[in-house]
Amino acid sequence: MPRTIYVINPNRSEIVTQGIDAALAPLRLADGPRIVCLTREDGPSGVQTQCDVDGAAMPLVQRALTLPDDCAAVVIACFSDPGLHAVREAMAPRRVPVFGISESGMLTALSLGQRVGVIAILDTSIPRHMRTYGAMGILDRVAGEKAIGLQVSELSDRALTFERMVAAGRHLVTERGADVLVMGCAGMASFRDDLQTSLGVPVVEPTQAAASMALGRVLLGW
Amino acid sequence: MPRTIYVINPNRSEIVTQGIDAALAPLRLADGPRIVCLTREDGPSGVQTQCDVDGAAMPLVQRALTLPDDCAAVVIACFSDPGLHAVREAMAPRRVPVFGISESGMLTALSLGQRVGVIAILDTSIPRHMRTYGAMGILDRVAGEKAIGLQVSELSDRALTFERMVAAGRHLVTERGADVLVMGCAGMASFRDDLQTSLGVPVVEPTQAAASMALGRVLLGW
Amino acid sequence: MPRTIYVINPNRSEIVTQGIDAALAPLRLADGPRIVCLTREDGPSGVQTQCDVDGAAMPLVQRALTLPDDCAAVVIACFSDPGLHAVREAMAPRRVPVFGISESGMLTALSLGQRVGVIAILDTSIPRHMRTYGAMGILDRVAGEKAIGLQVSELSDRALTFERMVAAGRHLVTERGADVLVMGCAGMASFRDDLQTSLGVPVVEPTQAAASMALGRVLLGW
Amino acid sequence: MPRTIYVINPNRSEIVTQGIDAALAPLRLADGPRIVCLTREDGPSGVQTQCDVDGAAMPLVQRALTLPDDCAAVVIACFSDPGLHAVREAMAPRRVPVFGISESGMLTALSLGQRVGVIAILDTSIPRHMRTYGAMGILDRVAGEKAIGLQVSELSDRALTFERMVAAGRHLVTERGADVLVMGCAGMASFRDDLQTSLGVPVVEPTQAAASMALGRVLLGW
Amino acid sequence: MPRTIYVINPNRSEIVTQGIDAALAPLRLADGPRIVCLTREDGPSGVQTQCDVDGAAMPLVQRALTLPDDCAAVVIACFSDPGLHAVREAMAPRRVPVFGISESGMLTALSLGQRVGVIAILDTSIPRHMRTYGAMGILDRVAGEKAIGLQVSELSDRALTFERMVAAGRHLVTERGADVLVMGCAGMASFRDDLQTSLGVPVVEPTQAAASMALGRVLLGW
Amino acid sequence: MPRTIYVINPNRSEIVTQGIDAALAPLRLADGPRIVCLTREDGPSGVQTQCDVDGAAMPLVQRALTLPDDCAAVVIACFSDPGLHAVREAMAPRRVPVFGISESGMLTALSLGQRVGVIAILDTSIPRHMRTYGAMGILDRVAGEKAIGLQVSELSDRALTFERMVAAGRHLVTERGADVLVMGCAGMASFRDDLQTSLGVPVVEPTQAAASMALGRVLLGW
Repeated sequence: MPRTIYVINPNRSEIVTQGIDAALAPLRLADGPRIVCLTREDGPSGVQTQCDVDGAAMPLVQRALTLPDDCAAVVIACFSDPGLHAVREAMAPRRVPVFGISESGMLTALSLGQRVGVIAILDTSIPRHMRTYGAMGILDRVAGEKAIGLQVSELSDRALTFERMVAAGRHLVTERGADVLVMGCAGMASFRDDLQTSLGVPVVEPTQAAASMALGRVLLGW
Repeated sequence: MPRTIYVINPNRSEIVTQGIDAALAPLRLADGPRIVCLTREDGPSGVQTQCDVDGAAMPLVQRALTLPDDCAAVVIACFSDPGLHAVREAMAPRRVPVFGISESGMLTALSLGQRVGVIAILDTSIPRHMRTYGAMGILDRVAGEKAIGLQVSELSDRALTFERMVAAGRHLVTERGADVLVMGCAGMASFRDDLQTSLGVPVVEPTQAAASMALGRVLLGW
Repeated sequence: MPRTIYVINPNRSEIVTQGIDAALAPLRLADGPRIVCLTREDGPSGVQTQCDVDGAAMPLVQRALTLPDDCAAVVIACFSDPGLHAVREAMAPRRVPVFGISESGMLTALSLGQRVGVIAILDTSIPRHMRTYGAMGILDRVAGEKAIGLQVSELSDRALTFERMVAAGRHLVTERGADVLVMGCAGMASFRDDLQTSLGVPVVEPTQAAASMALGRVLLGW
Repeated sequence: MPRTIYVINPNRSEIVTQGIDAALAPLRLADGPRIVCLTREDGPSGVQTQCDVDGAAMPLVQRALTLPDDCAAVVIACFSDPGLHAVREAMAPRRVPVFGISESGMLTALSLGQRVGVIAILDTSIPRHMRTYGAMGILDRVAGEKAIGLQVSELSDRALTFERMVAAGRHLVTERGADVLVMGCAGMASFRDDLQTSLGVPVVEPTQAAASMALGRVLLGW
Repeated sequence: MPRTIYVINPNRSEIVTQGIDAALAPLRLADGPRIVCLTREDGPSGVQTQCDVDGAAMPLVQRALTLPDDCAAVVIACFSDPGLHAVREAMAPRRVPVFGISESGMLTALSLGQRVGVIAILDTSIPRHMRTYGAMGILDRVAGEKAIGLQVSELSDRALTFERMVAAGRHLVTERGADVLVMGCAGMASFRDDLQTSLGVPVVEPTQAAASMALGRVLLGW
Repeated sequence: MPRTIYVINPNRSEIVTQGIDAALAPLRLADGPRIVCLTREDGPSGVQTQCDVDGAAMPLVQRALTLPDDCAAVVIACFSDPGLHAVREAMAPRRVPVFGISESGMLTALSLGQRVGVIAILDTSIPRHMRTYGAMGILDRVAGEKAIGLQVSELSDRALTFERMVAAGRHLVTERGADVLVMGCAGMASFRDDLQTSLGVPVVEPTQAAASMALGRVLLGW
């Protein structure tokens, strides 16, 4: 079964792609679809601004359109779901389902708790994410979103990043009533287990969530 | 990896269980979790009334609690999600995730279209389903629900059942603006492909959707 | 007029039933319906978990079905409204209206203020209550819910309980913007007047609210 | 117990007031509150336009402020709830609860079905009513509203009025999915029983609903 | 082009009217509509209570109906939008559009940020405003509303007023997630620029917003 | 006052740009801002697909960034609001407000009626528009959207186009309860007056709505 799920990291950071690739290892089965993680080499160092997001859409469409024939599903590995609906439209003739990690992460969270808190990197992303949750029609389930307030360069300080994530998560749980958390970034995957242990509520790593959804859909052939 | 997803049909119809079992075949992978479909032998012939639904909750809890140690996930295969939150609570100490096919089917549909139409068996189930969608906070994405108006006994007439499903689906698409459909019953699985072909919009078979979500979660260990 | 409103306490605590009975005294009129409070002797000591709630549903249906012919209305006196819709369905052939104290308490609160705060006993009940408010479609009017964080055994300490209720209510008013409060438990009735006096906003005792609604409906014959 | 519920008809039609008075007879109990229905003699022949509604507010406040000391509750018997919040404010120092029949009728309907249909007199009232349902935060429970399209003068033709009400109600049930109906006018009370029989779904007469709520609140002393 | 936009201050404060008049200066163009600000001399000193609001409706209708023939639009300059829909109805035969500053201010804010915070004068106005936002169907965009808690007489202390406005605005931004603010009163216009500078988020002065909308509509002739 | 509002047509059709330019004539005042309409010469013949929309975003950002120093506001004249939030972000350092015609048209409609119907060109655009209304948080005010079902090439047949628009508008008013309509395309401006006359409800031409909002904001200096 030559079926492959392509997970595209819209930024050019190989480290992020490697983190995603490692996180998806449990979803690789002997007779299941391959899962291949790609870096958009011509992408920005991070997808942070609205221009980064909108600027990623058409390159992602182009990348998707040139994926090999074995492409069975596409995952866009950025929490702003850049170009999600455009890539869906572009891949529709090939009947290839397309997943965004924000949509997939949030939908998965809805099966794990009643009120979803999201840990963002930057404050400036929150209004954009709120528009997405509104477009998804799920705002009644969103307890709130809290940024950790670190620059991309600071994210390499793992201890600081984790401390901030714990603080943001705790705020969402105790002050906003969240009972499930979503990590609002594709680059946080390696913190998921520790974060869940520290906070005592389920934590959704959105790229894993999206690849899981893709896995099911590929197997079912929908 | 001795992990098993148990899919429990809350009614006593072996035919329904067999239909579910067949529908889940594509999700069985060599090194993936086993998927075992169980019939609740002491269940009603169908779960149709509110009393059927509420009456199924505690027996499902009991059945879940007595599942063997290899239990990695539970799927409740009835579109009214009987006992979903009670089974979740009961299985939490064993860290076994639990899925309802209504919740899972609707969440999956949200990634396939903007406005979801649901094909129900009976008119009397629609207010109950609406309460569920309200509890899920997704009513803004629900285009409507339409019953095919057949008795359980009539469902064995496959030609008639399919005709009614096509009519209900068409109504939801053309009159209510649905662009994705969910089959609101665990016993309709074998019609999915034909229905999608006839109507030209994606059709979600909810037990497949739930088992897919279970598969991903078991592999990830969440 | 041999009409009787039966108020069923789904837990086995006679003390709770007696408290309810006392709270309903003002609704007993010479030529009005009788109001009889029943204890579910085989019930749990408290209805606190989801399994308690789901486990109470069918016994409540059975109890309702065996109520005498003079039964004119049923009130389910637990803030999780266990089995509400099943009991409604079961009593429909007898044309007996059925009331849950959560539904009735919240609807009553909507006529007393714009933003409703709910004082819960336990944190773990809040997601369940939120599902109910979502199913009722009234989440836009819910300011929040706050638990007093006491075990059932501690509720016998009236001074402590009242202190916690005042603190939770004050939080809901000052931090969440509530202008009306609902006591999210059938066992708090005797605190209502003092709580309202202390907090300066209307406080809804939900069993009184439900029995009031039942009284009106019985008199009207709807 | 010299407690009186005053039901004020904001239009000057004695016939409407008499119809209301008759409809409230079942709520009069030997040792319960008196229920007195008043006509606003200086009111318009009907409250139909937005100016009628806004023009009724302050006269209703004045009327309420001059009610005798035995006033225990006020019901404003017009489905546009004219001056509801102003009368509430004005009566707050006397601790007299105030009920609007639109608010009370809709809240009552929420305990009788999942999706509420409203039968209006005039199309032009529907946007105003929709604003009220929005302000109440219950739009997710409103299936729709349909006008019978008769002039006030034509309402005296009972056969025609009933026929139109049945047609509007049937449309709301079959085309919009309503499973409970509210009569959107204080002057339709005498049709309730026949309408419910003809349509097979519960029908709420809103003045009865409001007076029932008032009865309960007076007895409880809230 | 003898077109005039009449801005009516429903309270009798000439100082407020003068403040409005000054704030609208930028909207006066050589060949654009005149903008004339009127004081309702027989109005209350402030429109603060619900009775003030409801009591202002019909006088505003009367004032509007007697505006000269050159009336091209009406703006009601009170954040409770007294009589807005009645004045609309009354002016419809003359095809004169009517604007409320609450509606206009909130709609304008929706184009300036994702989550709107409102700075109110009094706590008691907040439930009324919430009903308006609910009637407008925009509650999902409202982050919250916070009162500055000053009496009308204290508003003449500009330093104190500004300090309180900054504190309320800061709370809305940092605690409630607002990214745009609306000044919930017609009398705050002169603080807008300083408030925006102090808080670093856009601040909407609602009378300017309403007069801007009126200007566009008059020019277009809608 | 060298202030200019730039209205950018994201498709390359000069005819559409000329139609917009003509429609905006009433908003040009002697001492008001200039209004200049630009065609994106390298744009597609029409912005119809999701890829067209996403593909227009960054070229619009580039075009906006290269607008002359007299740029006081930008209007994006396509009903899918391509790149709206990216252009806003890009122009923020220059403090230039940016308007999308979908957002502006819908907000304007909210002041003209209670339930908004939208006349679309193509069925395939409706889910995208629904996402936008969801992101705007205004779905409770949207009665529905109906496509006229013509290809771009057929739009040159004005009689046919108008006939279809009237039919779609009538459907939205009579079947869906719309009391205000929005033309869901920048190329329909010349039909507005006739459509409003034919249908008897207000009709919003969204580019005029957006330019009106821009005019007010430029004058106010916000």
